[in-house]
Amino acid sequence: MASKESDESGKMAFAGLRKQINKANQYVSEKMGGAEGTKLDDEFTEMERKTDVTNELIEELQVKTREFLHPNPASRAKMSAVKGISKLSGQAKAATYPQPEGVLGDCMVNFGRKLGDEEPFAQAMIETGEAMKQIADIKYALDDNMKQNFLEPLHHLQSKDLKEVMHHRKKLQGRRLDYDCKKRKRDRGEDTAPLGQPWCVECGVLSARWLGFTSVGMVVG
Amino acid sequence: MASKESDESGKMAFAGLRKQINKANQYVSEKMGGAEGTKLDDEFTEMERKTDVTNELIEELQVKTREFLHPNPASRAKMSAVKGISKLSGQAKAATYPQPEGVLGDCMVNFGRKLGDEEPFAQAMIETGEAMKQIADIKYALDDNMKQNFLEPLHHLQSKDLKEVMHHRKKLQGRRLDYDCKKRKRDRGEDTAPLGQPWCVECGVLSARWLGFTSVGMVVG
Repeated sequence: MASKESDESGKMAFAGLRKQINKANQYVSEKMGGAEGTKLDDEFTEMERKTDVTNELIEELQVKTREFLHPNPASRAKMSAVKGISKLSGQAKAATYPQPEGVLGDCMVNFGRKLGDEEPFAQAMIETGEAMKQIADIKYALDDNMKQNFLEPLHHLQSKDLKEVMHHRKKLQGRRLDYDCKKRKRDRGEDTAPLGQPWCVECGVLSARWLGFTSVGMVVG
Repeated sequence: MASKESDESGKMAFAGLRKQINKANQYVSEKMGGAEGTKLDDEFTEMERKTDVTNELIEELQVKTREFLHPNPASRAKMSAVKGISKLSGQAKAATYPQPEGVLGDCMVNFGRKLGDEEPFAQAMIETGEAMKQIADIKYALDDNMKQNFLEPLHHLQSKDLKEVMHHRKKLQGRRLDYDCKKRKRDRGEDTAPLGQPWCVECGVLSARWLGFTSVGMVVG
């Protein structure tokens, strides 16, 4: 009983190893010897290209959006440092990015007050400062809103869907190589083993995922 | 003739020196010995305070406005470096601050185009990107406008009017000390020299300047 089990797992391990060898064989033949690999569907290649572009896009979009919301990298760095420290020390105080509009507004209001309220110049300063502070408040709201409704779904897309697609693409690539190697051997009459599971299954999975995440993308956009 | 001239310049130099000694004498007596200085008008003191505040305000306002227009200090530094280099090498190419809205918009448009125009997600990206670029253009216009109509007059105010006011204030302070010293000496019967030019002339100049620059300030505000 035990020997049979070990025998079977040994067989499986051997099958896996043979598959790896097949893949390497096919990969080298394709790169060096000019062996033709099975061509993938045009539609599928196009989807692959789009996935690559989307992958890059999502990455860039997140970086650039953060930059758009918080253009001062020094303040950004300080914020994340403070966040890290407050996480360590268990404080939940949210560090806010100093919007330059708010900083300018504060400065105007402070100096307007110092100058005395009866001066027309001071009054103008205070009023302009208040307006600036309102702009800053609106930017804070925009900040929160974009983090919640734009960056969060993008991050989800990147860490879940795109990661899954990438995984399936890698698997597909491996299966195609294995399949092509077996086919080549059979054509030469060296091997008569069955071609095994058709790798096109993966194509179907990928297509489904692609359609899934373009619809997510549309919601995000 | 020549001896008379040198005699007179010698007298003038001696008068200047005596004035300096008087000032130092009065300054020390006021600080150490508790001698009372002539009190300045309340209105004048108030004006003095306001001038100080305005001085600070103008300084801060320029710094904060630049920060508001160009929140990324790294890009600001790069811009001024490029400006310096292009000045040295005689090129007149204006370096523009990269508005984060424009950077994000460019990224969206580029990736939208790469993704293909027929995709709804790509179309949304391109449209959003174009809108972002429009926002960036508006910010560039705001940038130019504020530089011309806000920062420029502020800089003028700081480098011309406020500098002049400060100069007159220093002179006024000196004259008052000299005057007080002479008065003290006369009260004790040590000196019978005339009190000289009344220092209040400076007060008048300062008042005129102050009124002048508050009206400039109002135009700026």
